[in-house]
Amino acid sequence: MNDADDLSDSVRTEPGEVGLVEPRDFVSIEPFTFDCGQTLPGFTLRYETYGRPNAARDNAILICHALSGDHHCAGIHSLNDRKPGWWNNLIGPGKPVDTNKFLVLCANVLGGCQGSSGPSSNNLATGKPYGTAFPFVTIRDMIRAQQRWLEGIGIRSLHAVIGGSMGGMQALQWGVEFPSAVRKILAMATTARESAQGIAFNEVGRQAIMQDPGWNQGDYPKNGGPRVGLAIARMMAHITYLSDAGLDRKFGRRRRSIRAPAPVAAEPVANPAVAGFEFEIESYLRHQGQSFINRFDANSYLTISRAIDHFDLSADGPLEQAFAPVLAETLIVGFTSDWLFPPEQNREITLAMLRAGKRASYAELDTDLGLSLIHI
Amino acid sequence: MNDADDLSDSVRTEPGEVGLVEPRDFVSIEPFTFDCGQTLPGFTLRYETYGRPNAARDNAILICHALSGDHHCAGIHSLNDRKPGWWNNLIGPGKPVDTNKFLVLCANVLGGCQGSSGPSSNNLATGKPYGTAFPFVTIRDMIRAQQRWLEGIGIRSLHAVIGGSMGGMQALQWGVEFPSAVRKILAMATTARESAQGIAFNEVGRQAIMQDPGWNQGDYPKNGGPRVGLAIARMMAHITYLSDAGLDRKFGRRRRSIRAPAPVAAEPVANPAVAGFEFEIESYLRHQGQSFINRFDANSYLTISRAIDHFDLSADGPLEQAFAPVLAETLIVGFTSDWLFPPEQNREITLAMLRAGKRASYAELDTDLGLSLIHI
Repeated sequence: MNDADDLSDSVRTEPGEVGLVEPRDFVSIEPFTFDCGQTLPGFTLRYETYGRPNAARDNAILICHALSGDHHCAGIHSLNDRKPGWWNNLIGPGKPVDTNKFLVLCANVLGGCQGSSGPSSNNLATGKPYGTAFPFVTIRDMIRAQQRWLEGIGIRSLHAVIGGSMGGMQALQWGVEFPSAVRKILAMATTARESAQGIAFNEVGRQAIMQDPGWNQGDYPKNGGPRVGLAIARMMAHITYLSDAGLDRKFGRRRRSIRAPAPVAAEPVANPAVAGFEFEIESYLRHQGQSFINRFDANSYLTISRAIDHFDLSADGPLEQAFAPVLAETLIVGFTSDWLFPPEQNREITLAMLRAGKRASYAELDTDLGLSLIHI
Repeated sequence: MNDADDLSDSVRTEPGEVGLVEPRDFVSIEPFTFDCGQTLPGFTLRYETYGRPNAARDNAILICHALSGDHHCAGIHSLNDRKPGWWNNLIGPGKPVDTNKFLVLCANVLGGCQGSSGPSSNNLATGKPYGTAFPFVTIRDMIRAQQRWLEGIGIRSLHAVIGGSMGGMQALQWGVEFPSAVRKILAMATTARESAQGIAFNEVGRQAIMQDPGWNQGDYPKNGGPRVGLAIARMMAHITYLSDAGLDRKFGRRRRSIRAPAPVAAEPVANPAVAGFEFEIESYLRHQGQSFINRFDANSYLTISRAIDHFDLSADGPLEQAFAPVLAETLIVGFTSDWLFPPEQNREITLAMLRAGKRASYAELDTDLGLSLIHI
């Protein structure tokens, strides 16, 4: 099935839309050695493609997703789908990432839980999910697996790598690791090294998961596990994807009446003065937590959030030194309201690239939507 | 014991320090009706005082504490104390809040858990702690209880009310509710209405507590209860009391080796590459969570965080209208690095006071310490 000439599995249902798409699996049967030194006999990446390869097979754009994202970044899986892929507004015929011109590719990251190999995958040695026995994953592991997948489907040269947040980390790492394979990098709302505050938020989420008795040292059944802890982690993380101003505009102090018990757990109503209402932002967040636990694996959350925390392109020296190999033309975009990867951290990447003599530009998007433009 | 002439219970152990202090209890045996309409037969406020009343008994300064604070804002309780009260650097003989000139007072808030009446107090009707049956508390309830306490100890006029974060809310509410009793207001790093983002963070903390099976609908033994949930709530809240830049300066990406299991729970060490170290910020946060559960009651956390969420001086009209009764001279101070109550929200208070024709000034403190200057 790894046949690049059969890549255009998008069926247009509406003009200007990618339409119906079907995910595929790339299965590597070559051993893969992680940065941590552990080796798996192979791995699977689930991916989607939109558009067609050109004759030179050099019109591919790789999209990299964020912590809670997946390979389904455009189109719909069935005509009943209520929501299209997470970047459908950017990807499609005639859209900013134009599938009339480009072959667009996106894979669920190594360590993920949407079809790619990760902690919830079955360990053939035990017949059970890997759980915490899945190797520690780095951002570099993620993009090395992607490179093997692309090679497997006959794509050796990328027109561009695009990503935001953790996707931006992958885009930068692509430019460093496989310089001659990447002509353009577009990294948004990202950083060259996870900050202490970012690590702090991730650690609270991990503690919420690992302290939930349902986590059981990572050994839990599918559809079970630390559902409360994962919901708490998601609720908190979701706040960091939004902004003070955006929340104020979208919710403010608006109230809603409480009819049914709240999704995750009913709040006690201790007195008449507050009975009958809660703030809209409260139920919104609980809904975010509740829907997340039905689509995400807690061990993957631990794995991927640790990959983010350990990302540090300046670990071995100044950032400009890390960027020395880069050949791609790079555009870094900061979002004014992003406080997890604030504009300053994005400017720092750009300046380091310029100091390294690279072709780099910086743009700032004035928005109160924060990381919600990138995260799902 | 409510004798104002015996108020100077501070014993100086060092020059320039408040020294040894002893908390006292004010017990009101008059019924107290909360804003929610519920009435308790009386209440207790635990408080401390430093300095002496002058002849006119008009040199008192009331300090109001934040969510996790208490009445112990200066001095030490025993010569073995490792830490003095939470604002000891500001309060004492010759210090900014000069106990040579002023009688300084601070009480644990109504709804608190450090000796004042709150959810962990015994309900005489049942012989058990109130738990969630304790009335819903508002910021206005807190300051009305304080006013009764002050009247009880013979203080009818305050030189100033000072507070930050939730303490600032109380200071503003004092100026609105008892205008003729307050000559100066100093409110720092606060807001006239809790923002959607603030409510959001508080709600995640509440969910972490209430989803912990140990919470048991608020019915748990002392030293038991939702310890994990409370620790998670505290870890997250603690991040919001710090700043991105402050965390970067204090911790950055520094690592520490892991010898003993981490305080709250040991993290699994899944592979050789990460065995043996973690980021310093991770263990710091876990320590914050762990020490908090030994001093704070989870139901009080729910009660006080809800009081904060419901605080909105503009609920009944424009803010300047709410400030119409104020007589006090007011200084509002915003902290540049405070993102929970950012400078903008503090400037908004000042502007509304000026529009209402009040004597109000605004100052901005350039610091990367965020709310940690106020919160304990």
